[in-house]
Amino acid sequence: MKDIANAIGVSAPALKELFRRDILRRAFIKHPFFSDIFEAYKLDRRFGGFEEGTLIAKTTDGVKVVRGFPKIKRALTLYPTIKKHFDGEVAIEEKMNGYNVRVVKFGEKLYAITRGGFICPYTTEKVRLAFDDSFFKDYPNLMLCCEAVGEESPYVPSSIYGDRLDFYVFDIRDMKTNTALPIKEKERICENYGFKMATIFDIVDCRIAHEVVRDVVEKIGKEGREGVVIKDVEMKEPPIKYTTSQANCSDLSYGFRYFGEYGKDFLFSRLIREGFQSWEFREIEDVMNERALRIGKAILFSMVESIRDVKDNGKIYEKMRLRFYDLEVFELFKEHVRRMGVPAKFSDPIQDDDGSYIVHYYKYMKSTTDIVKHILEGNLWS
Amino acid sequence: MKDIANAIGVSAPALKELFRRDILRRAFIKHPFFSDIFEAYKLDRRFGGFEEGTLIAKTTDGVKVVRGFPKIKRALTLYPTIKKHFDGEVAIEEKMNGYNVRVVKFGEKLYAITRGGFICPYTTEKVRLAFDDSFFKDYPNLMLCCEAVGEESPYVPSSIYGDRLDFYVFDIRDMKTNTALPIKEKERICENYGFKMATIFDIVDCRIAHEVVRDVVEKIGKEGREGVVIKDVEMKEPPIKYTTSQANCSDLSYGFRYFGEYGKDFLFSRLIREGFQSWEFREIEDVMNERALRIGKAILFSMVESIRDVKDNGKIYEKMRLRFYDLEVFELFKEHVRRMGVPAKFSDPIQDDDGSYIVHYYKYMKSTTDIVKHILEGNLWS
Repeated sequence: MKDIANAIGVSAPALKELFRRDILRRAFIKHPFFSDIFEAYKLDRRFGGFEEGTLIAKTTDGVKVVRGFPKIKRALTLYPTIKKHFDGEVAIEEKMNGYNVRVVKFGEKLYAITRGGFICPYTTEKVRLAFDDSFFKDYPNLMLCCEAVGEESPYVPSSIYGDRLDFYVFDIRDMKTNTALPIKEKERICENYGFKMATIFDIVDCRIAHEVVRDVVEKIGKEGREGVVIKDVEMKEPPIKYTTSQANCSDLSYGFRYFGEYGKDFLFSRLIREGFQSWEFREIEDVMNERALRIGKAILFSMVESIRDVKDNGKIYEKMRLRFYDLEVFELFKEHVRRMGVPAKFSDPIQDDDGSYIVHYYKYMKSTTDIVKHILEGNLWS
Repeated sequence: MKDIANAIGVSAPALKELFRRDILRRAFIKHPFFSDIFEAYKLDRRFGGFEEGTLIAKTTDGVKVVRGFPKIKRALTLYPTIKKHFDGEVAIEEKMNGYNVRVVKFGEKLYAITRGGFICPYTTEKVRLAFDDSFFKDYPNLMLCCEAVGEESPYVPSSIYGDRLDFYVFDIRDMKTNTALPIKEKERICENYGFKMATIFDIVDCRIAHEVVRDVVEKIGKEGREGVVIKDVEMKEPPIKYTTSQANCSDLSYGFRYFGEYGKDFLFSRLIREGFQSWEFREIEDVMNERALRIGKAILFSMVESIRDVKDNGKIYEKMRLRFYDLEVFELFKEHVRRMGVPAKFSDPIQDDDGSYIVHYYKYMKSTTDIVKHILEGNLWS
């Protein structure tokens, strides 16, 4: 424990206090699949200059600190926001709709760390198939920050990127300092090692970026894609994100489907985004009506679907399709889900043509279920 | 102060504590217009069996306790809710879209108490013109619970009921015990004294009320009316309210116009109501699309209007038209608004044909203004 305390610069009693206050929590399950790790903890809150989601692991390579991926702030209007926050050139990069994964190498193997700082067995299995370790041998201090996308995602399933879980690098960062490589270097490395990369739509002067982003966002919105991240080409300034109306509405649809689980803040913020975008895009009435219908449908249809679900089936589940290449990893993932406190059930694995196993993962949405049930029983709303 | 303490059954030190904790607050402005009252306080929270909004007044008639109007709970589905909460016959009464006023007589004059327990000078002036005091002479212990409606409303302006503020009795209650007269007695008294009454659409067996309410709600919704209150004809059970989709959407429109002032709870609850109604009414896709468009427009158009307002005028105000019959009451109302902590400005009064004065009342929406301004300056959203 002394090594862990040292790694984040606190005394042993201070470390104890962090555990007691649940700021520091266990981040992995001891298992041969994770054989390079002896101990691993994650920061559940920002602490002492370390981001939320920072992982501290005692590995066969010694104690490693993997910094949490920094929160990216959002623009609600493109102008003058972009111009105000950057100087010179910015890259307009795709923000894909998946989950954030940091890929690192400890000892002999690769590990996938999710946003919160957990080492995820499901993602780790896929990362080991997707990446060989030549990059990590050449750059032992760097991590690949990727968006994990695809239908077969346990966290953010999306059908527009294909079935299987796939990884798109968007940042390459120093594990310990969180310094990100400039865009050009990132591109060069990804090309050299054959990594898929989040699309860079354009690199433009920040003074005209708002116009370019608008065009990009309107175009990719129609394709159901999520949005963009605007980055200083040197990666010296914090990036800014901006999303399409379709992504906002897809969030609304998901949020109202499980309205008991998703907070009012989650839903409210998406609506506010739509207001500022519609205003900034100077939409005429017809276009506003289209947007209004999209918003209204996202809200209404998903709520009604959930009410029907409770009426017909008694309970609401989110159903996801997963794929495992090794059934031992399936067992490990089930334990992982249990430890994360997610009430869930799983179907039996069915072997696919390539020998991998397909499993259905049902996440029980207790809060939405309880509210709807309470109302359908004829109880009043205070 | 001892009389006040006695009236709500607490000791003098306990009364002091209620003041200190802001549970008990001053409820009127000392002025000849309110000459029958020496002191008056209101409960800002439920306390010791007294509802929030209860008024305790030392008057020329002695100390009077005027019970707060009880909160009416809401049905999200009509079936089985109505059937579950009532026995026998229920009255289906119109819920008008105004503000709740209790009309009482203290000493020589009538007084209008708003929901929160304030004696409102604006409303009191209109109440004295609308009601003579014969009813109060005959029934000194009763109060008239009215909806104050009309365009010229300082709290809930609505154009569907005509320009001038008007009063519709919906309950007649014992001031001190809060016991409500049965529906038939209320009707008889209102007819005898010539009081306008909230429309009673029907009186039906509670087992079929859900069907009748649905028909009523669909019909009055199209007319832009708010909804219904379902009441036990004997008034022995607490009533239940239920609103039209148009009223929910009108709330949404208002709430998103001033989204900084109106909480997420306010907005979220209206959306949930729409979901349950759409489900219960078994809407086909076309009808759901209509509802979705109505919801989406209510949200989007009002937000964009507010953003435009800040862009063009720098500030967002809610503008209301008021009418005073006596300029002294205007002065008193300005003081009332100040004491309620509402940041507002007023136009100069302009005399109308009948000698009354028209005034424009501008309520400054600081929170929405600040948020929009912050975003338009190019700041990020965390």
